[in-house]
Amino acid sequence: MIEKVLIANRGEIAVRIIRACKEMGIETVSVFSEADREALHVQLADESYCIGPTASKDSYLNVTNIISIAKKTGCDAIHPGYGFLAENADFAELCRDCNVIFIGPSPEAISKMGTKDVARETMREAGVPIVPGSTGIIKDSAEAIALVEKIGYPVIIKATAGGGGKGIRVAKTEEDLLNGIRITQQEALTAFGNSGVYIEKYIEDFRHVEIQVMGDTHGNAIHFGERDCSIQRRLQKLVEETPSPAVDSEIREEMGSAAVKAALAVNYSGAGTVEFIYDYKKRQFYFMEMNTRIQVEHTITEMVTGVDLIKEQIRVVSGEKLSLKQEDVQYNGWAIECRINAENPEKNFMPSAGKIQMYLPPGGNGVRIDSAAYPGYVIPPYYDSMIAKLIVHAPTRGEAINKMRRALEEFVIEGIHTTIPFHSKLMQHEQFISGEFNTKFLELYEVMDS
Amino acid sequence: MIEKVLIANRGEIAVRIIRACKEMGIETVSVFSEADREALHVQLADESYCIGPTASKDSYLNVTNIISIAKKTGCDAIHPGYGFLAENADFAELCRDCNVIFIGPSPEAISKMGTKDVARETMREAGVPIVPGSTGIIKDSAEAIALVEKIGYPVIIKATAGGGGKGIRVAKTEEDLLNGIRITQQEALTAFGNSGVYIEKYIEDFRHVEIQVMGDTHGNAIHFGERDCSIQRRLQKLVEETPSPAVDSEIREEMGSAAVKAALAVNYSGAGTVEFIYDYKKRQFYFMEMNTRIQVEHTITEMVTGVDLIKEQIRVVSGEKLSLKQEDVQYNGWAIECRINAENPEKNFMPSAGKIQMYLPPGGNGVRIDSAAYPGYVIPPYYDSMIAKLIVHAPTRGEAINKMRRALEEFVIEGIHTTIPFHSKLMQHEQFISGEFNTKFLELYEVMDS
Repeated sequence: MIEKVLIANRGEIAVRIIRACKEMGIETVSVFSEADREALHVQLADESYCIGPTASKDSYLNVTNIISIAKKTGCDAIHPGYGFLAENADFAELCRDCNVIFIGPSPEAISKMGTKDVARETMREAGVPIVPGSTGIIKDSAEAIALVEKIGYPVIIKATAGGGGKGIRVAKTEEDLLNGIRITQQEALTAFGNSGVYIEKYIEDFRHVEIQVMGDTHGNAIHFGERDCSIQRRLQKLVEETPSPAVDSEIREEMGSAAVKAALAVNYSGAGTVEFIYDYKKRQFYFMEMNTRIQVEHTITEMVTGVDLIKEQIRVVSGEKLSLKQEDVQYNGWAIECRINAENPEKNFMPSAGKIQMYLPPGGNGVRIDSAAYPGYVIPPYYDSMIAKLIVHAPTRGEAINKMRRALEEFVIEGIHTTIPFHSKLMQHEQFISGEFNTKFLELYEVMDS
Repeated sequence: MIEKVLIANRGEIAVRIIRACKEMGIETVSVFSEADREALHVQLADESYCIGPTASKDSYLNVTNIISIAKKTGCDAIHPGYGFLAENADFAELCRDCNVIFIGPSPEAISKMGTKDVARETMREAGVPIVPGSTGIIKDSAEAIALVEKIGYPVIIKATAGGGGKGIRVAKTEEDLLNGIRITQQEALTAFGNSGVYIEKYIEDFRHVEIQVMGDTHGNAIHFGERDCSIQRRLQKLVEETPSPAVDSEIREEMGSAAVKAALAVNYSGAGTVEFIYDYKKRQFYFMEMNTRIQVEHTITEMVTGVDLIKEQIRVVSGEKLSLKQEDVQYNGWAIECRINAENPEKNFMPSAGKIQMYLPPGGNGVRIDSAAYPGYVIPPYYDSMIAKLIVHAPTRGEAINKMRRALEEFVIEGIHTTIPFHSKLMQHEQFISGEFNTKFLELYEVMDS
């Protein structure tokens, strides 16, 4: 069993992992950039080391420093969280070479799923439904034009190395298409060091529904039901809920089985998420991508299943078998998560770094807070703007929405702007309450003016 | 259905009730003493009114002011919380006379259960096991001495109007007995306006195990399993857990049935708790008393059953039937509550009022905080010292203890002394971890020196 873990991340997910480790009796080592000396994850870990300057590439992506601190401090594992090195196959391989357990799947699985065109082909072979589109990456404009003549506009251009809503662009005309390919290639080269893009039919009205999976190193994989993440702004998730208001037990069963197939196809171990485009009008779903890491929104699945996914993840990568079978996974009630970002929703979600003057999270029955914020904390402007996840759990969707509304109303964060007012309005928005919406919700409705 | 509730209380329970009301779409009116202008319950309610000076008798016990504010603001119900007016039959009757729903049982039920000797007789008649002792209140010393000659020392002297650990005294000799009766009578007269005391055999080694019940106005009553509240200091509960490490399903079933019998015997409506002395060596239990109100530790039952007891309480006193049947009550996992008091555990739990300079409650999976504290809040020295309830929920007792330990370690309250260090030590105490202890735990072990 793992005895000491280095957490190669910051913010709420670093805190989340430290908490799980402490509860399991595992020692923790945190790392921090020069901008994060006062961060909560630094205060909570048993040991903490500076790994470099402010820029992520020099600190949280500084593979050499991270591995060498892990070795020096006697860590037998590294948890990458999400973002940063979480889906970096080279890093996972380096960990393996250095005899440190990477808390995630094998480099091969990361690589297969991380290269989006390879993932598509792997899924096609495994019998998981995929969206019509290119076979492999696009070589030139002519190929792209020819393909789109076949599948029709609109299409979506995706960086094969992208993920998490980054490196994605929709094209409705040939001009869009050619510009889109060029810009996406440039951006992808800068962001991911890989300019490859591919094209898929753009399904206009769909819900983003994803399945949480977990695999062990003994060839077993199970799923934990779906999450609906259709409330997005510019492809970034803002609110997640489980179950999905659009998914019934039949679709859940089919989608869950497809996700398990996807995981087994790459010998998946640890926690992962298979994202689907759910064409609810036709009751059809298509593989979108697999996130080979724990996700931000894993919390809501924990609320309804009662399973601590981080602990289970740590256990399975240590070599233990999954602690439960598919039929042991039971769903209780409804959970919703709102991502509280340091952004001003009145000013087009402009980032709002600065000092938190007053901080009081809501409490009470069915309310969970995952955050690295505290009174007096100065939010650095260099990293992700998410400063807290507010999660509620109640017997029904209606009760969960009412609870979320109450909790948002109570949440005090002074000194910076946050997305709390946005979420409060959303939780009172008739269309959201109806449960009938798709990923275009925020294009169709002006939540802040409602 | 109730539309507007006056909360005749303060602190965390007032906040708890306001939260439930908000989630149910019920308007809230809070009341406060002059010392509580800055209290959280005042800030959270829709409306708030000062009801008098600092002393409880002039404010939170000021029946006339409370009722008149309820009527003036159009409240159709009053929630008394616990303490203060919660078990005051006269107040419940006055509410009825004024056409305001008292969120609790009938004045008759309160009165029967509040008068301990009457409660004993009622239980005897209903077939609920009671501890050997006096029939009715003790008239004079001679009667007391004669009785104790029959049942033997040690005995416990109880004020018939007492409750919540107040107005109780143990006697091991005749001198103890006669002094004890005299002092308890005097104290009871001052505290409760009723000097009646009665005597019971004192069972030395027992666990305090209680059953949460709920009755509706249609003649139904069910129970929600037990809570073990054996960790007490001077008869005040400090830690509660459910299930009880000493109770198996057979005892739970028997005790639960006895508690339901007790509730039905007084046509009980709303939330109540039947407390038992559990003689675990003999696997026998005896009725101790019934608390005819919601209790501090109701939270842990909510965690394992998934039922919001305050909401259910509000629904049933509105006239609805219980929303679930006995067989619908399911128990999941283990929950523990630590009462965080503003007291110095290093100095014999001396109260420690003052300003909270820094406040950061723990968060994450399976952690619940019920509190009225906030950064900058000045704790007044006039009321109860409990400033927060920290509740954890996990699949097993071991995991719950580990989670509690982690959460206590994270909990930041600066500026005053609190019982957090005591709880941290307790959660690492071998005897506590073993689950084998009784109500003498804190007499037998020096937790702070361990």
